[in-house]
Amino acid sequence: MSEQTPLHAVERLRQHLHPIADLAAAAALLAWDQETYMPPDGAEGRANQLATLARLIHQRFVSAETKQVLEAAEGAAGAFDPDSDEAGLLRITRRDFDKITKLPTEFVAERARARAISTQVWREARPKNDFVTFRPHLEAMVDFARREAEYLGYTDHPYDALLDNYEPGMTAKDVRTLFARLREVTVPFVRAIAQRGPVVDAAFLSQDYDEAGQERFGLDVAQAFGYDLRRGRLDRSPHPFASGFGQKDVRITTRYNRQDPMSAIFGIFHEAGHAMYEQGVSPALERTPLSRGTSLGVHESQSRMWENLVGRSRSFWSHYLPRLQQVFPQQLRGIDVQTFYRAVNIVRPELIRVEADEVTYNLHIMLRFDLELALLEGTVTAADLPAAWNAKMQEYLGIVPPDDRDGVMQDIHWSGGSIGYFPTYTLGNVISVQLFDAAVRANPSIPGEIGGGEFGTLLGWLREHVHRHGRKFFAKDLITRATGAELSPESYLAYLQQKFGEIYGLGVPAAAGTR
Amino acid sequence: MSEQTPLHAVERLRQHLHPIADLAAAAALLAWDQETYMPPDGAEGRANQLATLARLIHQRFVSAETKQVLEAAEGAAGAFDPDSDEAGLLRITRRDFDKITKLPTEFVAERARARAISTQVWREARPKNDFVTFRPHLEAMVDFARREAEYLGYTDHPYDALLDNYEPGMTAKDVRTLFARLREVTVPFVRAIAQRGPVVDAAFLSQDYDEAGQERFGLDVAQAFGYDLRRGRLDRSPHPFASGFGQKDVRITTRYNRQDPMSAIFGIFHEAGHAMYEQGVSPALERTPLSRGTSLGVHESQSRMWENLVGRSRSFWSHYLPRLQQVFPQQLRGIDVQTFYRAVNIVRPELIRVEADEVTYNLHIMLRFDLELALLEGTVTAADLPAAWNAKMQEYLGIVPPDDRDGVMQDIHWSGGSIGYFPTYTLGNVISVQLFDAAVRANPSIPGEIGGGEFGTLLGWLREHVHRHGRKFFAKDLITRATGAELSPESYLAYLQQKFGEIYGLGVPAAAGTR
Repeated sequence: MSEQTPLHAVERLRQHLHPIADLAAAAALLAWDQETYMPPDGAEGRANQLATLARLIHQRFVSAETKQVLEAAEGAAGAFDPDSDEAGLLRITRRDFDKITKLPTEFVAERARARAISTQVWREARPKNDFVTFRPHLEAMVDFARREAEYLGYTDHPYDALLDNYEPGMTAKDVRTLFARLREVTVPFVRAIAQRGPVVDAAFLSQDYDEAGQERFGLDVAQAFGYDLRRGRLDRSPHPFASGFGQKDVRITTRYNRQDPMSAIFGIFHEAGHAMYEQGVSPALERTPLSRGTSLGVHESQSRMWENLVGRSRSFWSHYLPRLQQVFPQQLRGIDVQTFYRAVNIVRPELIRVEADEVTYNLHIMLRFDLELALLEGTVTAADLPAAWNAKMQEYLGIVPPDDRDGVMQDIHWSGGSIGYFPTYTLGNVISVQLFDAAVRANPSIPGEIGGGEFGTLLGWLREHVHRHGRKFFAKDLITRATGAELSPESYLAYLQQKFGEIYGLGVPAAAGTR
Repeated sequence: MSEQTPLHAVERLRQHLHPIADLAAAAALLAWDQETYMPPDGAEGRANQLATLARLIHQRFVSAETKQVLEAAEGAAGAFDPDSDEAGLLRITRRDFDKITKLPTEFVAERARARAISTQVWREARPKNDFVTFRPHLEAMVDFARREAEYLGYTDHPYDALLDNYEPGMTAKDVRTLFARLREVTVPFVRAIAQRGPVVDAAFLSQDYDEAGQERFGLDVAQAFGYDLRRGRLDRSPHPFASGFGQKDVRITTRYNRQDPMSAIFGIFHEAGHAMYEQGVSPALERTPLSRGTSLGVHESQSRMWENLVGRSRSFWSHYLPRLQQVFPQQLRGIDVQTFYRAVNIVRPELIRVEADEVTYNLHIMLRFDLELALLEGTVTAADLPAAWNAKMQEYLGIVPPDDRDGVMQDIHWSGGSIGYFPTYTLGNVISVQLFDAAVRANPSIPGEIGGGEFGTLLGWLREHVHRHGRKFFAKDLITRATGAELSPESYLAYLQQKFGEIYGLGVPAAAGTR
């Protein structure tokens, strides 16, 4: 066999990309450490290390050598099935190369340094409710975002350039259309629920629950879902997240509140959903740009599926409530499944996004999307943000945070320069139901299995149709392949109305079907 | 001012070295993570990441650009006082450059990969007492060591080339001379102590002590010594160590044994001693090759000083025993200072080096030195090591381990390819006393302050005479500058005879003086 076969050309590209993937994994571990264990004064050194790694990764990826091996491999592209790993590698590497070459290396390195400092400032300023100290860093992050949009280019709105980093191909216009439809159904639905009034007394969930018990139960369930602890682990961080360094090391974090055990427990379910996605990527894609989730929307669909469609379902708790009662016998004595199910599904406007119920959750996202657009357009500045945040909270949720800690400073994202990221959370909610419905259509046994504490069929379907592909297919194509239909919010809306209509006795729209 | 001033030339060198130091810090963090938190199946990916980083660091450091900026700066060397940071940077960078350029990049990268795998195999094999699985990795490590010695070159013995990595300028012949003198005094001394028999019943230290209390007390003392937790932290690992990523992030680990609380507590004192050294390096040396300890012997002198000269002294416990009794009131009820002091200074041959008393400790090192020489000479192979280990234990300590877990597999060093490292531990013991004596001569108040729980004068002297210099001076020069005398084992031997002669009622040699 000659050195010039198509497979050799792709293999050469793959070998060229391996050390870049290694450096990216190293940078990701440094970022993970910064959120979990790094001592506070390490931030400056860490910023230097991350800037150096970002510079090297960028230099190597936009190098003439990448161009040359990529073009050589593309010359052989005709030999590969479009669904093959090889075709996927060419498709995604080309996309990334064309995009990333538009950014100057020094911009990338300087931004990496500034992000590391900024998140550290946020980490220390938030508990002190100190927006003033954080503000200049936030301003810098907005400035980096605007410059990035200019470098990347866009036809309609600078937001499109940023959103494309997280959800390739999606635009602000798409988000607006989606959000308008969601708002149309959600806003009156939330109002009807509020008028109906409480249907359960959830005070039993506000007693003292020790952290060790929360952790043990959460991890037991995550392992039952399929999260592999030989390739993962759970730590603590101020803002929960999942982070992977190849499919054999994918970690999650959570935070604990002794007076609100379900926050950590659902948080673990959520992050385990993210982690199982990356653990499920085909080993053949390891050490390439394909070895992670295809978009943040699809990523979030996995976390929300395990957190909500599985973890907040009645059938799940019919199996797991007795187990949770073994961990917390005093606190949960005499609580039945129906009461518990209603208690973990209370719909009520809350200050904190990550603790919001499924119905009001998207309103938190809409607020952030509005503010991000305004920041990029310059109609709101970083200095205006606390007031703008509170006004939007009043508008969307009818409540106003008492301070910036639980208001504009609650999320880590902006501190790290992640602007254009938030809409993918709502998109994840929508995709989660569309995928779950497809999995159940293919395997009608799934809901019954969840009631028996069995999750293998669902995970198997996700592995086959979503996880193993990594970034090989764009989200749009992945969803069509997996579900037989284009992305649509209708099954998600039907799910919300069915589930919460039943809980709140509001009557279920005929079209929603049963679940 | 022209671009060509001497300061500009050195500054250019420094700027060139910064990203290399950043990459080295990243690699050190990846290694720290591997020992502390990495999930087991992450080892293969980690090995790739460490190999890629090792390759990049080596390529950059031995590059034509390094040569050029180094030579340009050396051309300006006449402008600098030999004691200046600038002269130190030139001296050490030249030494490192000449040495490291002798190693092929691929050798360095492959070794980094093999080391990461090998330590992981050791980590899993040791608890299972599974030498057979570990053996081929150990063989590979010995092979890397022999090849490294050949690449580096040596006049007398291949060991010299390796020892020079850890203790620049020292040779196997120097070690032999030192060890012969130590053996001459120690062996009859250990025999006399054994004949004297026990002077204390230490059973009270074998009760159940919870880990949280051990950790709290250990960290409280470490902070009182001067270990700064805004720039450090304590974690757990199978083998305790200290690891720095710049002087603002220097971490330590320990391991806990509920039936032997002093193991973790003295372990924390020890590692805090290492960490304070690196925290004390001048900030002006940050992100250069000078920003760590000058040699492992001097490093170990710091850990052993805080562990033994301070932490195992009677005056220390006269202050801290009541505090430890507050943490463990049941277990330590009625124990007086004299009893406690004797109990933590029992001289008795033990299997585990890191838990050995001060008198027998060096015998563990001599054993390892003998075996390392034999491995390099080829008179002992990796397969022979368990038996050779046990024979040496019988020879030096009169006891034989029941298994390889507590025998040949007890230390992490060989699994990571660190051959030539062990003698620096004994050297550290020797240097610790020479430095401590000099500190006390300059500040006679130090022993009294230790009895009052005050350590600032001692730490201040170490900061001034040892820590701040980093690698600026070679160990030999540093010791002469700090103590006014060349390195000698005599004050160390006098210390041992004085302290343990008093404890065991053996009579103190007249020349030993008082402490």
